[in-house]
Amino acid sequence: MKKIRILVLGLLAASGWGAVASEKTPEASHGIEYPSGWQNWSTIAVSHRTDNNTLRVILGNEIAVKAARSGKVNPWPEGSILGKVVWKDTELENWKTAIAPGDFVHAEFMFKDSNKYSKTYGWGWARWVGLEQEPFKNGAQVCTSCHTPVKERDWVFTDPAPFPALN
Amino acid sequence: MKKIRILVLGLLAASGWGAVASEKTPEASHGIEYPSGWQNWSTIAVSHRTDNNTLRVILGNEIAVKAARSGKVNPWPEGSILGKVVWKDTELENWKTAIAPGDFVHAEFMFKDSNKYSKTYGWGWARWVGLEQEPFKNGAQVCTSCHTPVKERDWVFTDPAPFPALN
Repeated sequence: MKKIRILVLGLLAASGWGAVASEKTPEASHGIEYPSGWQNWSTIAVSHRTDNNTLRVILGNEIAVKAARSGKVNPWPEGSILGKVVWKDTELENWKTAIAPGDFVHAEFMFKDSNKYSKTYGWGWARWVGLEQEPFKNGAQVCTSCHTPVKERDWVFTDPAPFPALN
Repeated sequence: MKKIRILVLGLLAASGWGAVASEKTPEASHGIEYPSGWQNWSTIAVSHRTDNNTLRVILGNEIAVKAARSGKVNPWPEGSILGKVVWKDTELENWKTAIAPGDFVHAEFMFKDSNKYSKTYGWGWARWVGLEQEPFKNGAQVCTSCHTPVKERDWVFTDPAPFPALN
């Protein structure tokens, strides 16, 4: 069975199928590779920005979610990745007083690696824009300048939402 | 290795450790068993109810998330479980115009099984209240009466949020 799998993968690679698949992965942003699979990460918090009318869900990889749920987030552990997914506001058709996600804006990420990203406060900063996930390339300073008010909170705005314990 | 694992599990069961663990699972709500592990499910949408000042994330099990991401949600497929997690509003300390999750209110769920739940429109309705996850037992009609405006949408208010394709 294992041999068959290797053979199939080999044939796919030889046919260029693998190359096509990898070409679909969005390009790097600020030299940081796309965190494939973030769409299925677990929730850390949500927010509604009333100044620019956007709704957000804050997701994390397993390291980040574990830290968030146990409240150990200043500093966040090495290897944490935080993702903020942003939509424009709209109202729910059947419940007019509920604000709900409209157009997708972007997904932005913080990658904790104190050595690798020592020049940007221990985090790598990246963003992919629109449903096509075009990499943002205007520089991490766009991110860090906005996050400066929370530099004493390991540069993170989000307070993890309270969740019942797993059981 | 397998034998060791069986031995360890046997010892744990004999010692009552397993029983203690299972006692921690919240009781059923409306006869529906607690959907353990929902805290790590993926996101379908978020919302902010401005009439009662609550923020929500709408999560789903794998069947529901797959349906949501592909837009096949009227009807939702058999086996779908939708979870709505509710927090009271608060404002983010370092970004005053951002509404963020405060106290946890409850987690409520819809379980799609057209046969089992034929008397309640094809869905099982359940809720667990507070961080202690006390089962709600006031009857599914509390849920269905509120959801009646969306009976033509398979009884679901939520429009799945747009997400970039997985890649």
